[in-house]
Amino acid sequence: MKKVKPALLKGFDQEFLPHEQLQFNALVELIRRNFERFGYLPIETPSAERIEVLTSKGGAEKEIYALSRLAAAEDDEAAAKGALRFDLTVPLARYVAMRERELAFPFRRYQIQRVWRGENPQVKRGRFREFYQCDIDVIGRETLSYLAEAEIPSVIYAVFKEMAIGAFRIRINNRKVLKGILRHFEVSEERSADVLRALDKIDKEDQGAVIAELERNGLAARAARELYAVIGTKRETNETLALLGDRGYAAEGLGELRQMVEAIRLFGVPDGAFAIDLSVVRGLDYYTGTIYETTLLDHPDIGSICSGGRYDDLASYFTNTKLPGVGISIGLSRLFARLKDANLLPKTVRTPAEVLVTTLDPDSLERYLRVAALLREQDINTEVYLERAKIGKQFEYANKKGFRVAITAGADEFSRGTVKVKDLAAQAESDVPLAELAARVKQLLDSKAH
Amino acid sequence: MKKVKPALLKGFDQEFLPHEQLQFNALVELIRRNFERFGYLPIETPSAERIEVLTSKGGAEKEIYALSRLAAAEDDEAAAKGALRFDLTVPLARYVAMRERELAFPFRRYQIQRVWRGENPQVKRGRFREFYQCDIDVIGRETLSYLAEAEIPSVIYAVFKEMAIGAFRIRINNRKVLKGILRHFEVSEERSADVLRALDKIDKEDQGAVIAELERNGLAARAARELYAVIGTKRETNETLALLGDRGYAAEGLGELRQMVEAIRLFGVPDGAFAIDLSVVRGLDYYTGTIYETTLLDHPDIGSICSGGRYDDLASYFTNTKLPGVGISIGLSRLFARLKDANLLPKTVRTPAEVLVTTLDPDSLERYLRVAALLREQDINTEVYLERAKIGKQFEYANKKGFRVAITAGADEFSRGTVKVKDLAAQAESDVPLAELAARVKQLLDSKAH
Repeated sequence: MKKVKPALLKGFDQEFLPHEQLQFNALVELIRRNFERFGYLPIETPSAERIEVLTSKGGAEKEIYALSRLAAAEDDEAAAKGALRFDLTVPLARYVAMRERELAFPFRRYQIQRVWRGENPQVKRGRFREFYQCDIDVIGRETLSYLAEAEIPSVIYAVFKEMAIGAFRIRINNRKVLKGILRHFEVSEERSADVLRALDKIDKEDQGAVIAELERNGLAARAARELYAVIGTKRETNETLALLGDRGYAAEGLGELRQMVEAIRLFGVPDGAFAIDLSVVRGLDYYTGTIYETTLLDHPDIGSICSGGRYDDLASYFTNTKLPGVGISIGLSRLFARLKDANLLPKTVRTPAEVLVTTLDPDSLERYLRVAALLREQDINTEVYLERAKIGKQFEYANKKGFRVAITAGADEFSRGTVKVKDLAAQAESDVPLAELAARVKQLLDSKAH
Repeated sequence: MKKVKPALLKGFDQEFLPHEQLQFNALVELIRRNFERFGYLPIETPSAERIEVLTSKGGAEKEIYALSRLAAAEDDEAAAKGALRFDLTVPLARYVAMRERELAFPFRRYQIQRVWRGENPQVKRGRFREFYQCDIDVIGRETLSYLAEAEIPSVIYAVFKEMAIGAFRIRINNRKVLKGILRHFEVSEERSADVLRALDKIDKEDQGAVIAELERNGLAARAARELYAVIGTKRETNETLALLGDRGYAAEGLGELRQMVEAIRLFGVPDGAFAIDLSVVRGLDYYTGTIYETTLLDHPDIGSICSGGRYDDLASYFTNTKLPGVGISIGLSRLFARLKDANLLPKTVRTPAEVLVTTLDPDSLERYLRVAALLREQDINTEVYLERAKIGKQFEYANKKGFRVAITAGADEFSRGTVKVKDLAAQAESDVPLAELAARVKQLLDSKAH
């Protein structure tokens, strides 16, 4: 028979071996646990939405994958009008507009799902066409306190502190401050977007290139250098606040920023873990207040691992109700790929059932199964080797799959009411009475470092 | 501004409110936990696969959704050659063929993901075009013991016992037995598929219709009635085995079936929870040995909630290695919808953070946040109400979102080192010193039935 090559589509190819999947799942659970700790509610939305919903805000058309029927006589609604979501924010806006009356506001939701974007995948750099996002948003009805913005860094802090992937900094800026600075430098409204785009490259390009781009956008040579120095110089948070005050930039935004810094401290985020950073620019139109990026101090090359900001109106394309909000997103597929490259992934078990009951004697099946049942009753996940095979092959399986404990027994052991318990890493084996088995296995599993 | 209607695509519309999502997630976790208890390893596969991979086996073309780019200048590979998976078995076959050398065999995997099928959605009956499947499979290399088949019912039993959705029965048949019976009734090879299709309707259509269809497929009137009586009569497992023996049907299959029944008992599945049922027919070509269906005894109308079987070769379209396997699938979206209709869903919390710290006095923010931090440190998920609002509005929010405990305090309480803890269901409130707060809240959360 002619074979089909078992291969994946480019960009749809972050697929894991089971032990990697367990590492990925552990990160998902860690993120979920921390989101839930702060009162965020889970939702999931369908993978495909109406195209008119996805494109309501505009700008994403080029990245969208639409659906069609491969071989059906007639298109159904999904094939005629549907496409895969490219982010979790547009579906959230549609969701809140649909269910406004049933939700309690401020609505805190988290969502951990895949999204699809027809971008050019650079697998080496951890970019995919199908990838996971982990989002939280807080949506107010009509109003939303700045405290919702101030709480966000404490959630980010909790997540990455528990993840233990090294020192990180939540970099915070404020769109109003940026606007005030541009006004001070007499950048016109029309040029603002281009100037911000130039400033957004400060971390990626060298000084000369950025200053040249600023000049091309109408700034005099001296103003361009000055603006670069204001935005591009790294300072302590208090220094930045003082500078903005001394120079008289951005009066309104500055007050907000001061208040925000104070509140973030109250929310328990230590000064080393966050900083005001004027070079955080982000999305050009969407955000209206605080904006966030998060970087690993020892791995700046990974880029921002968690970003977002405050916006004025989530769902203006769907409803007249004003829904101000604030949210952040962790691009988990990319983060996972980069952490793996940098050897920073937390260690996890290689199989969720770490105990294997080997089966030497086919006539003792009932007794092997009773051993497994006894362990499972004590919440110890346990697998039984069910093929007929020599013990060497069974241990080969145990090692390849990554079990930590193997149990062996034959007629001899069973007649004495014992089994052999083998610590596979230490290669140490001992006879254990059945009555003590669960306790002994638990002790082995708990005591060993992963 | 002209608004876009916030609506969902037909069949892509099983979307939950947060408290329903929590119920759904609880079922997913229950299923995952039980799969892991038996040593199944998690995998996820990309949503889109190469069309030639998805169609390798043939037969599913009409249900497949292909991808295209909505508005890109050029198609990428996914748009030109990709489509959404319609089940989790074809991706598993591709996965195992790709990663044969890296996997430990027998390979036990579980997979809980969405699939997409362009079927006619009957939302009332719980059919969707996008839905979750929860699959387990055990894949052997070259060989796979019948014990792998015998263990499957014990996994199904563990899942639905813990789900506590009422009495259920795992109905088991064997394709070889079915074939033997057809041979006995002199049904030709060519007619077999049609006759099995007729017999598959025994639970759904009345006797006359099924017998007429058997006659149309070449059985004499008397043989059709006899065949119907053999297959369609409900019997105890031992009775069925005796009948098959007495009549001399299906010698090879019968031996297997006897052995299977014995082993299933050894695996700890009580006789009330499983039965040999000759009317379980299932997929016509794919299965070669044991086949399974599972029904709720008080809700036969829901149909099979977990089905599957033994197959000879998983990935013959991708590799020359023979990969016999056995697997089952829970159609979770449909199950959830039907359990909800039947009011059988297990109760869960309405918010993962069941404690709300209300905020009466804006000047006490730091102290409110300290109370929340204190509770979170004791692993009690806690939300702080961050808007400025009268206490009545804050309690309205608490009730709508479903908190169980509210904490209130003003300058008075803080000066005494206490807070008020309110049990929202009982409407009972008491003053609690901060040092005792976590213990007291835990007690309230644990003691109350949901």
